[in-house]
Amino acid sequence: MSNTAASKTNPGNFFEDFRLGQTIRHATPRTVTAGDVAVYQAIFGPRFAVQSSDVFAKKIGYRQAPLDDLLVFHVVFGKTVPDISLNAVANLGYADCRFLKPVYPGATLSATSEVIGLRENANRKTGIVYVRSRGFDETGDCVLDYVRWVMVAKRDEAAPAPPETVPQLPKAVEPARLGSACPRIDTAAYDNVLAGSAHRFGDYKPGDKIDHVAGVTVEDAEHMMATRLYQNTARIHFDHFTASQGRFGKRLIYGGHAMSLARALSFNGLGNAFHVAAINGGRHVAPLFAGLTVFAWSQVLACADLPGRSDVGALRLRTIATKDKPCTGFPSKTGEDYDAAVILDLDYWALMPR
Amino acid sequence: MSNTAASKTNPGNFFEDFRLGQTIRHATPRTVTAGDVAVYQAIFGPRFAVQSSDVFAKKIGYRQAPLDDLLVFHVVFGKTVPDISLNAVANLGYADCRFLKPVYPGATLSATSEVIGLRENANRKTGIVYVRSRGFDETGDCVLDYVRWVMVAKRDEAAPAPPETVPQLPKAVEPARLGSACPRIDTAAYDNVLAGSAHRFGDYKPGDKIDHVAGVTVEDAEHMMATRLYQNTARIHFDHFTASQGRFGKRLIYGGHAMSLARALSFNGLGNAFHVAAINGGRHVAPLFAGLTVFAWSQVLACADLPGRSDVGALRLRTIATKDKPCTGFPSKTGEDYDAAVILDLDYWALMPR
Amino acid sequence: MSNTAASKTNPGNFFEDFRLGQTIRHATPRTVTAGDVAVYQAIFGPRFAVQSSDVFAKKIGYRQAPLDDLLVFHVVFGKTVPDISLNAVANLGYADCRFLKPVYPGATLSATSEVIGLRENANRKTGIVYVRSRGFDETGDCVLDYVRWVMVAKRDEAAPAPPETVPQLPKAVEPARLGSACPRIDTAAYDNVLAGSAHRFGDYKPGDKIDHVAGVTVEDAEHMMATRLYQNTARIHFDHFTASQGRFGKRLIYGGHAMSLARALSFNGLGNAFHVAAINGGRHVAPLFAGLTVFAWSQVLACADLPGRSDVGALRLRTIATKDKPCTGFPSKTGEDYDAAVILDLDYWALMPR
Repeated sequence: MSNTAASKTNPGNFFEDFRLGQTIRHATPRTVTAGDVAVYQAIFGPRFAVQSSDVFAKKIGYRQAPLDDLLVFHVVFGKTVPDISLNAVANLGYADCRFLKPVYPGATLSATSEVIGLRENANRKTGIVYVRSRGFDETGDCVLDYVRWVMVAKRDEAAPAPPETVPQLPKAVEPARLGSACPRIDTAAYDNVLAGSAHRFGDYKPGDKIDHVAGVTVEDAEHMMATRLYQNTARIHFDHFTASQGRFGKRLIYGGHAMSLARALSFNGLGNAFHVAAINGGRHVAPLFAGLTVFAWSQVLACADLPGRSDVGALRLRTIATKDKPCTGFPSKTGEDYDAAVILDLDYWALMPR
Repeated sequence: MSNTAASKTNPGNFFEDFRLGQTIRHATPRTVTAGDVAVYQAIFGPRFAVQSSDVFAKKIGYRQAPLDDLLVFHVVFGKTVPDISLNAVANLGYADCRFLKPVYPGATLSATSEVIGLRENANRKTGIVYVRSRGFDETGDCVLDYVRWVMVAKRDEAAPAPPETVPQLPKAVEPARLGSACPRIDTAAYDNVLAGSAHRFGDYKPGDKIDHVAGVTVEDAEHMMATRLYQNTARIHFDHFTASQGRFGKRLIYGGHAMSLARALSFNGLGNAFHVAAINGGRHVAPLFAGLTVFAWSQVLACADLPGRSDVGALRLRTIATKDKPCTGFPSKTGEDYDAAVILDLDYWALMPR
Repeated sequence: MSNTAASKTNPGNFFEDFRLGQTIRHATPRTVTAGDVAVYQAIFGPRFAVQSSDVFAKKIGYRQAPLDDLLVFHVVFGKTVPDISLNAVANLGYADCRFLKPVYPGATLSATSEVIGLRENANRKTGIVYVRSRGFDETGDCVLDYVRWVMVAKRDEAAPAPPETVPQLPKAVEPARLGSACPRIDTAAYDNVLAGSAHRFGDYKPGDKIDHVAGVTVEDAEHMMATRLYQNTARIHFDHFTASQGRFGKRLIYGGHAMSLARALSFNGLGNAFHVAAINGGRHVAPLFAGLTVFAWSQVLACADLPGRSDVGALRLRTIATKDKPCTGFPSKTGEDYDAAVILDLDYWALMPR
């Protein structure tokens, strides 16, 4: 079993490999194209008019139809996986995620991450790594900026624990920091009929609950194709042979897949929430597997003005996705315990025309 | 279970919501791209040279390779679903469907429908809605025009029945109304070898039967991806959880999926029928589900000249698709009863070079 | 059962239909686009930076990101199937396959084949056909040139055997004949970090073995979509109804699918082997079916200079793919017998920057 080249494969980083303040330039820059848009469309089926039609987008102020915000997120996220989460035990959370510039077909995305926190666990077998990751386009502009933290395995329990640093993270992005990726919208030119919803910013109020009604069953081929589209290599999504002997017994679906399904389902009731401006936090509450059917509902947490803008307002939304449970009853959390069907609890800001 | 925002989701229209003469502008304009062409190619595998190669298409008279005619049909059809058939009980038929202008990657399609007929059923629980739907490109030109009728549920049985109007519909589009979407073809430049068939218009005669030989098994991931590509949201195609408790026990495949499979299979024997100029009628005879294998055969019903054109002729074709039954025996109809394996009976005009 | 048009379908060629020296122009020219690139990306997940990013590719010397070499191979191969292998009993081998020119989105590929060998088998029921196939772009330049041989059924055992001609084929392409599809690479501009590997040509030596670690489970929808993307019509890949009664009991996955999976997996350990310059030989050792998980490992057979070039070197690689068996133990061949898990044994040259 002679393998003189073992070192040429990527073992990923273990907890003790990370250093506070370390900056990582991720591999695999990616030119995103109309092809990627079509594959994403086929897997998730979004109907937001801005991303669907060049004509609609231009009419209201975009250069052309921009890429779906979550597609941009997943492509950038995918680039961080080989360096940040190859040896992750669990993806714990997100915060302070802002979409900063529209991304159009033909743009080339690359990513970096900065280690902003480290905290070894008491059991000394794992530790939490906090990173701020950024996606850039080919001009060098930052298009996306977010914080994520993951529980990463240690290679060697005896490796000394780093000084504990846990970053202060906002519970939500402030409205003043929203909207960089949304041009000034010509609201008179924004056609509600073509958009598919008569409800604009002023029609929503905090406390509103919206059941998005439809359910969509996930297939293995679909989630694998989406995850590979993002060049996200995490093995647990692809390898049934190994997964069948593991914790779940089957391939685990990338948490971002449920985010995109829920976002697409949310069109029904939030059809004019055309831009995800920021993600405040997200929790993958329970695992998702092929064969299960995803449903979703949303609650409006807040309605905010964007200082200096009168074209759009921001809705702070909490979208919950479930597996095999329609959301007529708005399944959620009681105390600390989620309804057993909940798979995703996502807190984000979406912009709507006034 | 407080839901103050229930009204924001789309319940679709019920039979009593339609009015004769009503015009509906559908939502979700869509820029169709080379990405959509590739996804469609991957799901159906068509080999018609005109849509496959820009060089071939330009050589014979197109600006570049146009989109597959049925891809255009499905994208336009998908836009009508939220308004016309969300509460449909059955899709009853099509007529007078004409392809009017080539659609190229980069075009933006939108759709409208006019209610041209209404007939409540005796049971007062449902009614038939007849609509003429049109697809437009970004210049405002009509690219597709067809009539469809569906059985739609009533919200309230007691709602008064509208005056009965059943439109007169042609059994077939007249040859004189064919060919607007087909430029003058340079038949000398049309290379049979590259096209994959030595048989041109004059080689077919009424009565010819062609078994297309190959079968293709459908997977859930495929039909869902195709249907989402068209932004067709009908729930029964996507939601196994709900379907498992319903009439079929599983997800029903969009009827148009069988049309596209049959059209792709028909290349074997009709390789030079490069353009679907019109659909005279179509019947989804039996439901199609994943795991079944689709076969197809065609009969030439008529061979017609296009007045004023000598480049192409029109074949009126009847293509029958089956599930799990090769078509060596040309399974069809005896009296009013179809062979149990038949899933689709499609009557259309295709153009062939002379 | 009147079928006057039976002759219009393509029965494919049988062994006795081929003539030595015969040249076949294949059908179905195909414009390859960014859409095809995205679908291929979604099915195989390659991470080589050159094909992933226009910026990276241009920086080192390409016009833009070229298509994945194996995608070009499969598209060309697909065009030969209706003429060469519709009645094939087995795909026996490849040799002398060279990639000659970069192919970019927007190119139109067509193919020809020349019969360079014929050998009827002693049983008189089959014979081996050797063809040299070439892929061309729209300028008429040859982009790909390879030899393949298949065992083809005879229509009529009594048909006379042709004179036996077995071509002399090189065991491997000589290094001097490599690299036409690879522009002069600016190795200083080639960024290892963005490429995802610190190992360049000089870091490998003959005998090195690299386990590529990850496994990927194949789904029917995926392999059918890929094979249809290439317009490869071989029925055994698509028709479960017929296959269920046949030799394997299920759909056989196109051998090229395993090649592309293995190539994508090989990124881990060979991340800078950015261009497949030639394929020396390939054997589909055992069939692959959906539900199985593909693993791969590679051995460096040789490291060669390209005469007159100092930018890149060529690694002769042997990549072995397995089903349901991780490659930590480098499963291979003992004498003439392969490990039961081996599905593919591929011998090729890949270029790496110095």
